[in-house]
Amino acid sequence: MKLGGYRIRTRSAIEFSESRRCVIVRSEMTKKFAPVKEQLTLIQRGTAEILPEKELEAKLEKSYRNATPLIVKTGFDPTAPDLHVGHTVLLQKMRQFQQLGHTVVFLIGDFTGMIGDPSGRTETRKAMTREDVQKNAQTYKEQVFKILDAEETVIDFNSRWMEQMSAAELIELSTHYTVARMLERDDFHKRYEGEQPISIREFMYPLVQGYDSVALKADIELGGTDQKFNLLVGREIQKAVGQEPQVILTMPILEGLDGIKKMSKSLNNYIGITEPPKEMFGKIMSISDDLMLRYYELLTDIPNQELISLTSDIAAGKKNPRNIKADLARMIIERYHGKDAAQKANDDFDAQFAQKRIPEDRKMIPMPETNMAWPQYLAKHGLAKSSSEANRLIAQGAVKVIPIGGDVTQAQIIKSLKDPLNLETGTFIKVGKRVWAEVK
Amino acid sequence: MKLGGYRIRTRSAIEFSESRRCVIVRSEMTKKFAPVKEQLTLIQRGTAEILPEKELEAKLEKSYRNATPLIVKTGFDPTAPDLHVGHTVLLQKMRQFQQLGHTVVFLIGDFTGMIGDPSGRTETRKAMTREDVQKNAQTYKEQVFKILDAEETVIDFNSRWMEQMSAAELIELSTHYTVARMLERDDFHKRYEGEQPISIREFMYPLVQGYDSVALKADIELGGTDQKFNLLVGREIQKAVGQEPQVILTMPILEGLDGIKKMSKSLNNYIGITEPPKEMFGKIMSISDDLMLRYYELLTDIPNQELISLTSDIAAGKKNPRNIKADLARMIIERYHGKDAAQKANDDFDAQFAQKRIPEDRKMIPMPETNMAWPQYLAKHGLAKSSSEANRLIAQGAVKVIPIGGDVTQAQIIKSLKDPLNLETGTFIKVGKRVWAEVK
Repeated sequence: MKLGGYRIRTRSAIEFSESRRCVIVRSEMTKKFAPVKEQLTLIQRGTAEILPEKELEAKLEKSYRNATPLIVKTGFDPTAPDLHVGHTVLLQKMRQFQQLGHTVVFLIGDFTGMIGDPSGRTETRKAMTREDVQKNAQTYKEQVFKILDAEETVIDFNSRWMEQMSAAELIELSTHYTVARMLERDDFHKRYEGEQPISIREFMYPLVQGYDSVALKADIELGGTDQKFNLLVGREIQKAVGQEPQVILTMPILEGLDGIKKMSKSLNNYIGITEPPKEMFGKIMSISDDLMLRYYELLTDIPNQELISLTSDIAAGKKNPRNIKADLARMIIERYHGKDAAQKANDDFDAQFAQKRIPEDRKMIPMPETNMAWPQYLAKHGLAKSSSEANRLIAQGAVKVIPIGGDVTQAQIIKSLKDPLNLETGTFIKVGKRVWAEVK
Repeated sequence: MKLGGYRIRTRSAIEFSESRRCVIVRSEMTKKFAPVKEQLTLIQRGTAEILPEKELEAKLEKSYRNATPLIVKTGFDPTAPDLHVGHTVLLQKMRQFQQLGHTVVFLIGDFTGMIGDPSGRTETRKAMTREDVQKNAQTYKEQVFKILDAEETVIDFNSRWMEQMSAAELIELSTHYTVARMLERDDFHKRYEGEQPISIREFMYPLVQGYDSVALKADIELGGTDQKFNLLVGREIQKAVGQEPQVILTMPILEGLDGIKKMSKSLNNYIGITEPPKEMFGKIMSISDDLMLRYYELLTDIPNQELISLTSDIAAGKKNPRNIKADLARMIIERYHGKDAAQKANDDFDAQFAQKRIPEDRKMIPMPETNMAWPQYLAKHGLAKSSSEANRLIAQGAVKVIPIGGDVTQAQIIKSLKDPLNLETGTFIKVGKRVWAEVK
């Protein structure tokens, strides 16, 4: 693999011990990394925050000097994954670290999953079995390896260390964080102030997540901006046990198709990565031009420079946003369904769009007079040469009414001369293949 | 042993397994308990609170019906014990439960001791070794068996179950309590409001203490009023895991010799149970009459009825509080040093007091005039027949000055005719064996 003209060999050995636990073995091979400045440019792209940036630089310098990759941790829930492109913002950043030659750990928080997580008030917990976790891990792999380099990704489970931990050790761990700081976390703070119950158990999760960084000796932890607090707990706990603290890097939470709310299944503003190409294309074509540029930044690999010129070209009217959007859609679809499927989705969309379009050169006609019938109405406004031709056209099923908004798939065929003229301002009428009118 | 005319057999078997862990084996023998009302009277004596009293009654009823003792838990710190009589208020109550035939568990919280308890801000912890804990347990036994029935006391250590507990189980346990309720605990509340750090670890202790009740299947937990919160946590956790919740019984915190602040080593207002009889006697004789009655209630076994008549006799002037106080002192000393030592302490105190006393029939004399010497001063006010007799007395070392307050052990001998007359109003002068004066 090549990056910035430097040959990089990124193979870290991953071993699986007899107890099915994988351990990271720092590669024996020495590596040649890209210069630190060059790495920084790629790492910074699209990030919300890097804390502290100076420490990241120092870690990269050291890694470069010693030809040793950094350990980059990202945690994932063990619940059944069905990823949407919002999740891939993080995967994208992980992939960039892989491209730079660092060791990316895809950490599945199965320990917490197996003991069950009660959210808020209710005591109901669906504890996952080891089989559930393994099954989900498999599904995860199938999905994330569309983005990550399967060869280079270390998949680990936090049950590896957490199942060994005793209550005494957990109590020891809980020394390193105060109640007040925990209550500074936005959601805890709101719930505490709002007198919503917070189980003490919920305080344990950030501690466990923090300890994961100790167990992995993480140099960097990635997460969404909503994870900032938890990532910082990891930093604190590493410091408390005498480890060099991790740098934290947060990625923005991707906005959904509406461009306002975060992409989520429950808001139905998402693009699932297992959706058919056709659905994906249509959804991406529906977004605003601003959101399109944001998706370019966070979901594609196009170089920073290209992104900048794209933005200015659109602003200057040199490029048609519709075409740029189609390019984006193809890029995203290609990743999950391949190049051919992406092109086909584009072609299909164009064809369908052309079909569906209501032409500009349509007649504007007034509402029918009272008691007027279809043949007279069509003849009067020149949509048929005569009432008798109109009769014939209706008999052939060649007269259609399209409701306000112009969705041709909603067209209704006029079946009889006596069908009522239920028209409103904005209704379209199509006669034969080419004659169009709109009711004024 | 007899109580209220009922013969009670209180032998519960205590077994020690090979791993030095003792387990409570509910006695196979059926027991005949005193009637519930009678038990209640003794149990209620001196208590601060019983919560809920109805449940206590129900538990006693059931115990009576099934002829099965209740399990009464009391927790103690594993730190080096050096008990004062303030601690014995609780031991006294435990003993009463033993007298009633119930199973009293003296639970040493060694688990927490062995992992070390950071108090507040500082991270310094002195974790105890297993040897420390065993040594302290031995010292505890020597001290507490002056009050408790050694044969009937179950000594247990919470490391027995807590060392087996995994982090996952502790997290599970922490489900059962909320942050808000924990912050209701008085000290936590104050520290949180005062922006003093509270380590999350500190939240673990009430949970562990609560779990101890689950492990012991405690019916009742005893503690000082300052333990109320923790005892209630035990109740909650038992409920959460489906056990019948324990009744909690709190005892007042004994006031120290000053009658105001709680008895404590650091306030130097305590009576240590290993103090010599003489010290104990002097300290008890120094307390107020009100405090004396309180000590009678909380530190002695005299029946309720006797306590009531004692109180009214003193109020009516039928009894001299000084003698009642001496009785109290003997009762308390007897427990720790035996009957003879108690009587001797009383006799010695009386003798010393008689010796030390400055007699009422002393002369009141004015301050010496300027430049007056000792012989003239003594002769002038009739403390010697003449200056020359005064000279002789001084030469014999028979003239003494006692400072304000009249502590004769602080007497200074006038060694020379030329010694300065450093006197103030309230200074005493003793000449020979019987002549006393006080400077006006």
